[in-house]
Amino acid sequence: MDYYSSHILKLIEEFSRLPGIGPKSAGRLAFHIINMPQEQVDSLTEAITGAKKNVRYCKQCYTLTDEELCPICKSNKRDHQTIMVVENTRDLAAYEKTGQYHGVYHVLHGAISPMLGIGPNDIKLKELIERLRGDIREVIISTNSSLEGETTAVYISKLIKPTGIKVTRIASGVPVGGDLEYVDSVTLLKALEGRVDM
Amino acid sequence: MDYYSSHILKLIEEFSRLPGIGPKSAGRLAFHIINMPQEQVDSLTEAITGAKKNVRYCKQCYTLTDEELCPICKSNKRDHQTIMVVENTRDLAAYEKTGQYHGVYHVLHGAISPMLGIGPNDIKLKELIERLRGDIREVIISTNSSLEGETTAVYISKLIKPTGIKVTRIASGVPVGGDLEYVDSVTLLKALEGRVDM
Repeated sequence: MDYYSSHILKLIEEFSRLPGIGPKSAGRLAFHIINMPQEQVDSLTEAITGAKKNVRYCKQCYTLTDEELCPICKSNKRDHQTIMVVENTRDLAAYEKTGQYHGVYHVLHGAISPMLGIGPNDIKLKELIERLRGDIREVIISTNSSLEGETTAVYISKLIKPTGIKVTRIASGVPVGGDLEYVDSVTLLKALEGRVDM
Repeated sequence: MDYYSSHILKLIEEFSRLPGIGPKSAGRLAFHIINMPQEQVDSLTEAITGAKKNVRYCKQCYTLTDEELCPICKSNKRDHQTIMVVENTRDLAAYEKTGQYHGVYHVLHGAISPMLGIGPNDIKLKELIERLRGDIREVIISTNSSLEGETTAVYISKLIKPTGIKVTRIASGVPVGGDLEYVDSVTLLKALEGRVDM
């Protein structure tokens, strides 16, 4: 491999370690960086260092934020009695983009997965239970509709039920605009089970 | 967008500017970086800075290298009378991986493209002509089989022919292992034109 500079090889190797970047893309990125203006390279490395250094967990909902409390937990326009439980900050962002949810969140940073050895103590679950001592009316469980997400949802609902707080789960079904022909059969059955009156 | 930390937004924006990375992948990368151990983040930023700082053009063939002369130009095992002309360092690497080419290279860093406003002076063409003053027997033009690559090949061959040096072009045809059914008609015609005796 001595046809590539050792510095290029190192950079390709580093890029290959990132998710979704194979050796070919890593090569393309490395050559792109070498041809980028110096300011742009500096801007990229500063953004990486800055994000790693300054981003931390909100001390209430555990989303990733710059400050002690995230803008959502700080806001007095939000309904602080309704908590939506999500697996990660990207899922929180997905619901925020709808603009229609006005409660607050709790970010678990993962889901229970016996296969991967992730137990209830490896996610921010104690912290959620801690929050329920406050004045909470409803917990909406919005973990993914995967095996891990469902396991986590069942586990959380069992934990919360004895407290008398209302626990709900977002609906599973056919995606809006989706063609039934291309929807998998598990989803079709979920959609049937969850049918509503018209 | 205040559900994302400004540092995360900045990082997503920086990643989105890289080739082949859309907003979704940029988001995934940004969150991955925040969860990466500090040493790994440092290792990534150092690789970027190091590659940008230390990689330069080989003063003979213009490939990207750490030193003044690349390992290929420095090697006395290579045939320095045969020059293969390629568009970029990745194309050089592609031929090096075959392990069967023993000449040296010349990297143009682009191809002539009137559409994109790239003329003969925007690529390392003067530098190639300069090299031909030495003891050169053959120039193999291995630019891509695209409009730009072909234009560049024709342009270079016209420049070199008057010097009496042999100029060749790599063959176009059906890829090895390719099924004729799925090969485009231009390639099929090229393969027919370029047929060889058996």
